[in-house]
Amino acid sequence: MRLLARPAAQHTLDELAAPYAVARSTSSDDVLLLDRLAVEQGIGRVQAVPGKGGGVRFLPGASPAAARDTIAAFASVMRDPARVLPGGFMYLTDLVCSPDWSHRLGVVFAAVMRQAEPTHVLTVETRGIPIALMTAHQLGLPLLIARRDARVTEGPALSITYLSATTGSVQNMSLPRRALRAGARVLIIDDFMRGGGTAKGLTDLVGEFDAVVAGIGMAVVTGQPADKRVGRFLPLAVLQRVDEANRWVELEPNLELQWFTGRRPVAPT
Amino acid sequence: MRLLARPAAQHTLDELAAPYAVARSTSSDDVLLLDRLAVEQGIGRVQAVPGKGGGVRFLPGASPAAARDTIAAFASVMRDPARVLPGGFMYLTDLVCSPDWSHRLGVVFAAVMRQAEPTHVLTVETRGIPIALMTAHQLGLPLLIARRDARVTEGPALSITYLSATTGSVQNMSLPRRALRAGARVLIIDDFMRGGGTAKGLTDLVGEFDAVVAGIGMAVVTGQPADKRVGRFLPLAVLQRVDEANRWVELEPNLELQWFTGRRPVAPT
Repeated sequence: MRLLARPAAQHTLDELAAPYAVARSTSSDDVLLLDRLAVEQGIGRVQAVPGKGGGVRFLPGASPAAARDTIAAFASVMRDPARVLPGGFMYLTDLVCSPDWSHRLGVVFAAVMRQAEPTHVLTVETRGIPIALMTAHQLGLPLLIARRDARVTEGPALSITYLSATTGSVQNMSLPRRALRAGARVLIIDDFMRGGGTAKGLTDLVGEFDAVVAGIGMAVVTGQPADKRVGRFLPLAVLQRVDEANRWVELEPNLELQWFTGRRPVAPT
Repeated sequence: MRLLARPAAQHTLDELAAPYAVARSTSSDDVLLLDRLAVEQGIGRVQAVPGKGGGVRFLPGASPAAARDTIAAFASVMRDPARVLPGGFMYLTDLVCSPDWSHRLGVVFAAVMRQAEPTHVLTVETRGIPIALMTAHQLGLPLLIARRDARVTEGPALSITYLSATTGSVQNMSLPRRALRAGARVLIIDDFMRGGGTAKGLTDLVGEFDAVVAGIGMAVVTGQPADKRVGRFLPLAVLQRVDEANRWVELEPNLELQWFTGRRPVAPT
């Protein structure tokens, strides 16, 4: 139970065995049993960490079937006609900020992105935070939140300006100087991407720290424009059209977790 | 394992038993065993939900001893002299945004606040979001995030203005009209409180929806001013003094989880 409550955290066998008054070797056998159960249920792996100071950890993950179930269910709730707002926008805030959905989508992102071996998860305020936090929690990594304006209470910060295609205006983004070290591998997670300007801005910000982008995950991307300003990204759903008059939403779930490529990347400005 | 992965969610016995090919009655006995284990480890309760459509759910919670451990450890990492910033501020962003810490503090808040029977958790962007999200996840409740500016992509919104003691300026906060219904019981969670202006603003916003505040939880509050602008609140730690010259932090953990009262509440403006 302790293993599942704190994903990716390492527990010693003594610590785990203590409440049950069993010997270490019993726990050691149990690790194999727990791992088998976790794999059968498609919720991840339980691993022994060898050596001095070693122990046991739970690495949550979604089997391909479990990921498909989550993505299909997510697409289905998004298609609700009641989500169509005046102006052809969609109300998604309750979904991307929902503890349950952000957890489920975070599990999917963590399962896919783990192999890229990220060291940090990065998002930008505000609506991307819940999914990014849950992804980071599943991976056992720190979360960084880029701010739209530098705060005096966060100390020295690195800032960049970028062009947002959604608002058509130049915006500002910053991270505390002490948040990231050179060589870090940063996984970018956000809730929504239209032109990719914000994701491009986050990529540039990572570069300012001499760190690298290990992957980009988006809960929802729009089908148009097809030429996003970032290279390779993983969307969980593609929003093709919001028909305000008929209150109809055309949306494709990315059931096979295919990576997308911004077809005609724009040169850095 | 499914129980712990999705706190407060209800699972049917058939669903839980399926991967193990056991009968329902076996699972029923197991609920009692799981509950005993959860209580022994101080991580919550496992409950049977009777009746048609009933099942089993895991209600995470922290025993008083587990809560004390978390709060003491949180206070200890906060006291690190390296957190003192120019101007006598403290760098806490990495802590309150950390998946692990926000999860652990969320577990404590959920354990204490559950008895107030909240229906929603509310915070304001940005740094309060991780702890509020984890609290909401533990309680199985939706999370609402008040925005500093109303967004066209969130539809019609209710806004209020309030006086922030920290910045000394009048600020704006809004929630989508459809986010909250009359009669809802709202738990307010935030990372930091100085004068209580923001918490007072959130309280007023809740009132605009004809909803009520079920409780207010703060990760850190300052000792001064003692007369906060809200009535009753639960801090996990009280920051008394940041000595910039000597890089020394005076901070008291609220180990007994005592509720505080704003001694001289200011009349509504």
